[in-house]
Amino acid sequence: MTQPIEVDTARVLADLTTLRHIGAFKSGVHRPTFSDAHIQSLDWLRRRMTEAGLAHETDGIGNVYGWSATPGPKLLAGSHLESQNEAGWLDGPLGVVYALEAARVLNGRSDVKGGVDVVAWCDEEGHFAPLLGSRSYIGGVTEEEIDSARDRTSGRSLREVLQATGLATTPRLLARPDRHVGYLEAHIEQGDTLERSGIDIGVVTAIVGIWQYEITFQGQQNHAGTTSMAARKDAGLALARFCVEIDDRFPVVAGARTVWTTGRIELEPGAPSIIPGAARMLFQVRDTDPEVVARLEAVLHDRAAVATARGPCSVAVKRLRVGKPAAMHQTIQDAVERASHLVGASTLAMPSGAGHDAQMLATVMPAGMLFVPSIGGISHQWTENTSDTDIATGARAFVNACALVLRGQSDI
Amino acid sequence: MTQPIEVDTARVLADLTTLRHIGAFKSGVHRPTFSDAHIQSLDWLRRRMTEAGLAHETDGIGNVYGWSATPGPKLLAGSHLESQNEAGWLDGPLGVVYALEAARVLNGRSDVKGGVDVVAWCDEEGHFAPLLGSRSYIGGVTEEEIDSARDRTSGRSLREVLQATGLATTPRLLARPDRHVGYLEAHIEQGDTLERSGIDIGVVTAIVGIWQYEITFQGQQNHAGTTSMAARKDAGLALARFCVEIDDRFPVVAGARTVWTTGRIELEPGAPSIIPGAARMLFQVRDTDPEVVARLEAVLHDRAAVATARGPCSVAVKRLRVGKPAAMHQTIQDAVERASHLVGASTLAMPSGAGHDAQMLATVMPAGMLFVPSIGGISHQWTENTSDTDIATGARAFVNACALVLRGQSDI
Repeated sequence: MTQPIEVDTARVLADLTTLRHIGAFKSGVHRPTFSDAHIQSLDWLRRRMTEAGLAHETDGIGNVYGWSATPGPKLLAGSHLESQNEAGWLDGPLGVVYALEAARVLNGRSDVKGGVDVVAWCDEEGHFAPLLGSRSYIGGVTEEEIDSARDRTSGRSLREVLQATGLATTPRLLARPDRHVGYLEAHIEQGDTLERSGIDIGVVTAIVGIWQYEITFQGQQNHAGTTSMAARKDAGLALARFCVEIDDRFPVVAGARTVWTTGRIELEPGAPSIIPGAARMLFQVRDTDPEVVARLEAVLHDRAAVATARGPCSVAVKRLRVGKPAAMHQTIQDAVERASHLVGASTLAMPSGAGHDAQMLATVMPAGMLFVPSIGGISHQWTENTSDTDIATGARAFVNACALVLRGQSDI
Repeated sequence: MTQPIEVDTARVLADLTTLRHIGAFKSGVHRPTFSDAHIQSLDWLRRRMTEAGLAHETDGIGNVYGWSATPGPKLLAGSHLESQNEAGWLDGPLGVVYALEAARVLNGRSDVKGGVDVVAWCDEEGHFAPLLGSRSYIGGVTEEEIDSARDRTSGRSLREVLQATGLATTPRLLARPDRHVGYLEAHIEQGDTLERSGIDIGVVTAIVGIWQYEITFQGQQNHAGTTSMAARKDAGLALARFCVEIDDRFPVVAGARTVWTTGRIELEPGAPSIIPGAARMLFQVRDTDPEVVARLEAVLHDRAAVATARGPCSVAVKRLRVGKPAAMHQTIQDAVERASHLVGASTLAMPSGAGHDAQMLATVMPAGMLFVPSIGGISHQWTENTSDTDIATGARAFVNACALVLRGQSDI
């Protein structure tokens, strides 16, 4: 293949703009999972699927599929339509509209083998639970989890919402590796790596795992006026010292792209006139390499032991969650890279620091991802944006990558 | 005076034990301001005042006074009967019962000039507002403050509670410097200075002022997975570094008894997967010397400027409250010291790190305080305690100090 397949980028931009007006919030959208705006966007998608010759089906967790009638192997492609609260217009919709465009362009073409199935996974953003729809599709969601899941903002139970949406008795669909040769998802980068490098397309090598820790500090609660500095066991101060130690020591041991974050700090009791007797921080590490994280975890335990021995507070490190990095399939990485070059786009191989539905799909079939640049690296905020040019380039690269995957490895 | 006046220490301990059973919580008490237990303790006090020949009067803010009929100059003595939530049995009651004992022993004695008036100030502990009763007595509480004050635990309005207690139309009394030659208050130390030194009585030189600051850190909220370490502006980390800098630099500039505390830390938004874009800490300094605090404040501003210049976050220091240290009157300090030695007790001149009603009284008349040791320095907790021996020694010193003050400076 030497000439790229033509893509209707104006149609892609028009579809994205239509979705931008469903639940618009400033220049972004507010479209939480199963909100009226989200349901309206799914209705829109089902109509678009029908127009594209796809047979739409909605399963019991709210995933919307568009099945291609084209004979031969199928590639599954998509992303999600719900948004974070008051967030960006492209986080999710970009990947769904690209997939829709791929189906419109490729299904039934004589020079393409098989077709593209389209999917909008439900609740990737985790209003009820992280990666809910794609996790359900790979068999990773139990009925008990659905029983207990609640909207993190409104507190509404998932069961109640599924009932109201008419999905309570609809079965949840499971992955069909016999039908699908792979899964491809496009997404905004959400960071500024592509923009800083002046690169058009990110070829995702792996999705990082997230390791989560609770680090607790035990001191002695006391009166902030009558307790001398020498007699204090200030758990808040011990926490601050620990944060600074991590910031000083981690860079020596971390990988080039490792990131770590203290997102939450709590002092007990948290009153201005009381010396904190206990403190707690939520600490997170993201990397694609468990061995790097093992080294960092050793630093945490070492520093906690040293701090406890030094006193006056004791420090305990508890791992709450083990990261599961997901490697993207080499064949699909190659297809994305080659398709990008075919449409004249530059590429950078890079990991994804954020979680995506593709990490769920990667456990049951070859999966890959394509990133387009985010302006200023802004994400999960209504100012999130990508230039029309980058959106169009991404669409061309994505549709051609789908074609390359369907043509099979021998063509790559 | 070479022989001390005899004190009925058994009666003092019996009265304190009676109060301990009113609103008992484990080995302490739960007697919040205007709770049933607090009102019951005030009823008890009024009966005891009558038995002691004092004319009781309750004013419109809930202060209970016992006026002595003895001719001549009067010394005002007392403390408070309400407690912090689930707190100690002696924090407040010790000073009220000592004052009652002083009135019982001294009023009408031929070798004592004048008499002792007793007072239980309302809400020293600030369930509605700090030092409410004593502050009202010196004219420091407006009707607007009473209009807006609410119980910090229940949320009940002060107006509603005063109505329910039958005090809504009772006038609030104001200080009578013409009647009182001074004010003396006994209290538990609430720290461990006396216990560690093996000293019986603390002669309070001054009550520290409390300077309060809000220190804010401005960074950039971002995704904890997609934002590289180099690109981050983590306000929480900037806060941790600032806390450690304070802890490293303050000891060089601070006074021997200065204390400083970060009691509260807030990260915005405080989620595990989001880099904090803003952070805030409440910081407090206590000292008796405003010049020492001015030096420390200069350090805060200097370090904030350096941190802002260094980046990546900006730091702002805002003073929320200026401390007002209250010097205890030298004549009364001398009387407490001499009386303690007279009853065979050792003394240590020391500041009070905690606030007390005496700091309000010191603005309108000579005021002084006497401390007894706190076991383990524990305060504002139900395990707070003082040995019976120390309570008895304190009572002897207190009553004799009252006698010395009433006899006038020439005798001291």
